[in-house]
Amino acid sequence: MTKSDAEAMSLRRAGDGFRWEGVEHRPYKDAESAPFKAISRQNLFSDPRLLGELRYFEIEPGGFSTLERHEHMHAVVVLRGLGQCLVGEKIHALQSHDLIAIEPWTWHQFRASEAAPLGFLCLVNSARDRPQLPSAQDLAALRADPAVARFLDGNI
Amino acid sequence: MTKSDAEAMSLRRAGDGFRWEGVEHRPYKDAESAPFKAISRQNLFSDPRLLGELRYFEIEPGGFSTLERHEHMHAVVVLRGLGQCLVGEKIHALQSHDLIAIEPWTWHQFRASEAAPLGFLCLVNSARDRPQLPSAQDLAALRADPAVARFLDGNI
Repeated sequence: MTKSDAEAMSLRRAGDGFRWEGVEHRPYKDAESAPFKAISRQNLFSDPRLLGELRYFEIEPGGFSTLERHEHMHAVVVLRGLGQCLVGEKIHALQSHDLIAIEPWTWHQFRASEAAPLGFLCLVNSARDRPQLPSAQDLAALRADPAVARFLDGNI
Repeated sequence: MTKSDAEAMSLRRAGDGFRWEGVEHRPYKDAESAPFKAISRQNLFSDPRLLGELRYFEIEPGGFSTLERHEHMHAVVVLRGLGQCLVGEKIHALQSHDLIAIEPWTWHQFRASEAAPLGFLCLVNSARDRPQLPSAQDLAALRADPAVARFLDGNI
């Protein structure tokens, strides 16, 4: 790619409904790999010269991301809609432009409201570990808190 | 900080006017260091465990960022308002959620419209080089293109 090609490609316009030109609209993750519902991913910036990647996830009303934890951090900026997230044992109601930091090895899950989708940017390190799913014991420990159990059951 | 402190601090709410709780509203850069006008910075995510930093810049109507270039890349997501950016010799009109990638060593400048501010997220590597300002010769080369000269003069 020449320098002027790169300049010409430097802009990717936002289209309707939080889709971007030149950005593939993808499944959130492999369907068989972990539980989730009604969520898509668009990788907005993924470049070997950037040490971070910026992705946009959108959860349809009533959908949710996988409950997981990992060594790498998440830095999240809500762009659209309404929902909640679980971070450790804390449940946060979310709205546009709220910031969420997810510390290493903290269980987390995002849920859209029943009435509106939840769309958010998520910054991660490009080099990162694979997420870990909860064991039955981990789930029991999380569910010991009635508010967390309600969240995990989708009663948000 | 204990784990539960970190969980409690995991959310920083968006306030009015694209300000965030717990985020300092700062000058764009040292006033004497380079030409710019009417621009502020908020560092949204800056953590040693993240290899990237996410900042929010807001340019008031008629304001502009410094014309500069550097080795490190910028990955920009417009969040608010209207404006234009110069990337190399290319001028792009900008609106909410447009994506701009600025390649290494590419001259760039952002300008808000006269009617509305321009607010954007900017992802950079945490470890990065200092920006370089244009020499008189660099400026003359850029201004050889009449559209670029108009942009640099603020006639956008």
